[in-house]
Amino acid sequence: MTATHISRFAVPELDAMPEDLRERILGVQEKSGFIPNIFLALAHRPDEFRAFFAYHDALMEKPGNLSKAEREMIVVATSNINQCQYCVVAHGAILRIRAKNPLIADQVAINYRKADLTPRQKAMLDFAMKVSGPAYEVGEADFETLAEHGFDKEDIWDIAGIAAFFGLSNRMANVSNLRPNDEFFAMGRNI
Amino acid sequence: MTATHISRFAVPELDAMPEDLRERILGVQEKSGFIPNIFLALAHRPDEFRAFFAYHDALMEKPGNLSKAEREMIVVATSNINQCQYCVVAHGAILRIRAKNPLIADQVAINYRKADLTPRQKAMLDFAMKVSGPAYEVGEADFETLAEHGFDKEDIWDIAGIAAFFGLSNRMANVSNLRPNDEFFAMGRNI
Amino acid sequence: MTATHISRFAVPELDAMPEDLRERILGVQEKSGFIPNIFLALAHRPDEFRAFFAYHDALMEKPGNLSKAEREMIVVATSNINQCQYCVVAHGAILRIRAKNPLIADQVAINYRKADLTPRQKAMLDFAMKVSGPAYEVGEADFETLAEHGFDKEDIWDIAGIAAFFGLSNRMANVSNLRPNDEFFAMGRNI
Amino acid sequence: MTATHISRFAVPELDAMPEDLRERILGVQEKSGFIPNIFLALAHRPDEFRAFFAYHDALMEKPGNLSKAEREMIVVATSNINQCQYCVVAHGAILRIRAKNPLIADQVAINYRKADLTPRQKAMLDFAMKVSGPAYEVGEADFETLAEHGFDKEDIWDIAGIAAFFGLSNRMANVSNLRPNDEFFAMGRNI
Amino acid sequence: MTATHISRFAVPELDAMPEDLRERILGVQEKSGFIPNIFLALAHRPDEFRAFFAYHDALMEKPGNLSKAEREMIVVATSNINQCQYCVVAHGAILRIRAKNPLIADQVAINYRKADLTPRQKAMLDFAMKVSGPAYEVGEADFETLAEHGFDKEDIWDIAGIAAFFGLSNRMANVSNLRPNDEFFAMGRNI
Amino acid sequence: MTATHISRFAVPELDAMPEDLRERILGVQEKSGFIPNIFLALAHRPDEFRAFFAYHDALMEKPGNLSKAEREMIVVATSNINQCQYCVVAHGAILRIRAKNPLIADQVAINYRKADLTPRQKAMLDFAMKVSGPAYEVGEADFETLAEHGFDKEDIWDIAGIAAFFGLSNRMANVSNLRPNDEFFAMGRNI
Repeated sequence: MTATHISRFAVPELDAMPEDLRERILGVQEKSGFIPNIFLALAHRPDEFRAFFAYHDALMEKPGNLSKAEREMIVVATSNINQCQYCVVAHGAILRIRAKNPLIADQVAINYRKADLTPRQKAMLDFAMKVSGPAYEVGEADFETLAEHGFDKEDIWDIAGIAAFFGLSNRMANVSNLRPNDEFFAMGRNI
Repeated sequence: MTATHISRFAVPELDAMPEDLRERILGVQEKSGFIPNIFLALAHRPDEFRAFFAYHDALMEKPGNLSKAEREMIVVATSNINQCQYCVVAHGAILRIRAKNPLIADQVAINYRKADLTPRQKAMLDFAMKVSGPAYEVGEADFETLAEHGFDKEDIWDIAGIAAFFGLSNRMANVSNLRPNDEFFAMGRNI
Repeated sequence: MTATHISRFAVPELDAMPEDLRERILGVQEKSGFIPNIFLALAHRPDEFRAFFAYHDALMEKPGNLSKAEREMIVVATSNINQCQYCVVAHGAILRIRAKNPLIADQVAINYRKADLTPRQKAMLDFAMKVSGPAYEVGEADFETLAEHGFDKEDIWDIAGIAAFFGLSNRMANVSNLRPNDEFFAMGRNI
Repeated sequence: MTATHISRFAVPELDAMPEDLRERILGVQEKSGFIPNIFLALAHRPDEFRAFFAYHDALMEKPGNLSKAEREMIVVATSNINQCQYCVVAHGAILRIRAKNPLIADQVAINYRKADLTPRQKAMLDFAMKVSGPAYEVGEADFETLAEHGFDKEDIWDIAGIAAFFGLSNRMANVSNLRPNDEFFAMGRNI
Repeated sequence: MTATHISRFAVPELDAMPEDLRERILGVQEKSGFIPNIFLALAHRPDEFRAFFAYHDALMEKPGNLSKAEREMIVVATSNINQCQYCVVAHGAILRIRAKNPLIADQVAINYRKADLTPRQKAMLDFAMKVSGPAYEVGEADFETLAEHGFDKEDIWDIAGIAAFFGLSNRMANVSNLRPNDEFFAMGRNI
Repeated sequence: MTATHISRFAVPELDAMPEDLRERILGVQEKSGFIPNIFLALAHRPDEFRAFFAYHDALMEKPGNLSKAEREMIVVATSNINQCQYCVVAHGAILRIRAKNPLIADQVAINYRKADLTPRQKAMLDFAMKVSGPAYEVGEADFETLAEHGFDKEDIWDIAGIAAFFGLSNRMANVSNLRPNDEFFAMGRNI
């Protein structure tokens, strides 16, 4: 494993990682068949690794009204605007699988307004894009529009949290020049 | 064939098209196995159809120092910034095939600065993005930078022409809500 | 005729051009009294010359509900935002003549919102500016607004087509540093 | 004289103005043959009228290394970016006259980078555009670039002052919907 | 007094200034306990000094429906977007004093949409920000919105004038690297 | 304690929080004399609270070459561009205390280019602003510039991490309309 293939920063060997990181990584590898590079790149900073995935899981794994596919749509749409290769490619794969739809990830990444989505999902992404961009303009009117589409306040926190968290992830991936694993590109394309 | 599946505008039946359009379309269908929607959507306006494809061929089929894959890179990178679903998906497929590389299209679309490209190709795309955006700032310094990477003046015209032509194509596709054919999404991913 | 006075690229002599280009150019010269530089600059690439003017004529000469002056308004407003000296100056002249109004071109170029236009014409230009800029945001609401002003779908295609085509023209003119002929500046100012 | 033809705000009759305003206005009328609308529109607020023209004269009439034509170039280039119809049209006329050049105003307004200017004048306008836009980024490097082109610190204050003052003027003209007098459009075009 | 501590440009000694400037400055010093640097920096150009403060007073001291605190809100909100250190710090101090509120200046500077303001004041600042930015888009709809909040046409001129005038001030302060006096930072924070 | 004074979302009572949250909050209260609202607002989602503060501490409390004041500078500069009232006010207070400088926070927030900083600190903030904005453009040249100012790769990760993490924080604060505690505004102003 050569560090430079994955990230601009040093990437530790699995053996040299703290036990809890290695266990999480081996668990992912067992489930996916490979180790997504984000795990290896962040292992360079164990405390940040732990906080990052705790935050990730708190937003992406928690129960709620947003389906898992919808959460991935938020990631994919905002990550393409932030031009983050890793997040669009990796979460595009997850979105295809979660939505059982081989076309949806590219549609959402490039222009969600033209994607095969419900009006409710488009409203969700309109708001996610605003949070990802000029969040300082978010106001009561946004909450009302979302309520008209059936989103309650917890859903709105979820949308905002996912857009904001992946804004962090996109920035770290771009600074570290994080490379998406080759495996992600074709995953879920023949569902 | 229902018009609304392809474009916001009416789409003519093959039988109702002028002979030259029908022939070109049947030729493409024979070669590709399906009819790319751009042909059907533009057939709504035969004169524009003819001019569009004449322009397209003059830039994409002419001899020159830019490889066919490099020309497709220009299309893919500028079309994603213009958020044109049809052009990124359709030309992404062609790029994968021309470059014999299943990863390159997504890399170039999302952030060409991090793609597996040569410095010369990145300089080509830096310039294409400037033409696609603030072309009014193009000046002597751009020509010098490109010359340092081995591009001559004809190459520079080619890069600019492709970026400019697909800016037109992107705008028409977005206004007409042109839908990429399902076939494009997976093409060239298992090379 | 020195190439450098017209374009950054080589400009062929009339004698050295293909017959059809020379004929079109001589026809324009006979009608206008001079040869607009765009014809000479594009003659460097005969195939692109032919496609460019075929496209131009398909949009600017076709019958339709938009008057010829209105089509020129679209060119002038979008070309100034794209900072294209050639297109604003040359088409400003044509607009003054077509509209029989010596003030309209400068008004429309600088800020069409304050120009002596009808609300319908301002709505037309609002849409043209959106196509020229964030065309990816064009949606059903734009079509409805335009319909309220009496534009049908063919008119909307015309507006979009003109804005998109001159976006291409603006980019090529800026890259080639195309110089507007001196004659255009004063044309139509004493109507 | 109808107020609505000139400005969104009330325009006083000459007789109803304070003596000093009327005198200045009659002086201008005698010299130019007509009253530029900015004088009538600002007469609505005599104190602002006095301060505005005092500021204007302090920048535009003072001795210095910038020629009068060069000062007008700054006005014209920045006013077009600010989309101010009055300032581009009125000062375009003055620029043509001061420079004794019927082409220069349109060239500078639309894209000064392609205008018939010296490198020193283009550097002057590059700086004026930065002051007009992201002035917060102005720093030592800008002063050095300008010094290389022969501008001393007083010249730099002049450039900045003119760009900043007309930024104010542009904003007031756009808010008051100030209409350029018809006379300005053709002035200086047959020099 | 060292010039470089205050401005990038030379700052005259009080003794070397024209009598009227010195008197105004000594008057301010007597009232405030110190001389705000803007007075010293502009004294480098006496004519501009006189015009600047005449304009300032015409907008900030005139009678009208906007309270003095509201006028300072306009200065503070627009100056932060223009990243003008002097104006935010100095007028932030004045705003705290005028509003008798130690929190209001920082709230308004950073994000007035979340500040402790009335809807009428937020509408006032929405408009001021538009004038400070894309003033060319100001139109009838803005006047109607402001009228609904009780602003008459003279109030609208006031808002626009203050936003436009401080846009000039912000630009000159940024170009001259004008340093806010230390005294301003803490003024009005313990009201 | 009324929720609406602090956040758009429900704020739990201290008694109703999980033990670890309450302990952390009581610890902060003991040290600061009050409870910063961010703790109360995030307590609405205990898992996100834990991840947020773990991430925060991993970046802000870890050893490294960036001083604690320098880390706060990054927060303050990027948060003002993101127009986040809570983060500018709260971290401005911490910056004043850490830097023992009552002026530095306002200077850095409004325009760090004009603040009393070393060239090394300005280079640090230039990079932080790029990460906060167009992080997709970060490349080798940025790493070289930072190296020239003495930053090693771990420092660069720190700068990027802080800018990226507070981009998340800014977005959540703006969406939840998080109110800065009154206490922060005056803290550290009389050092």
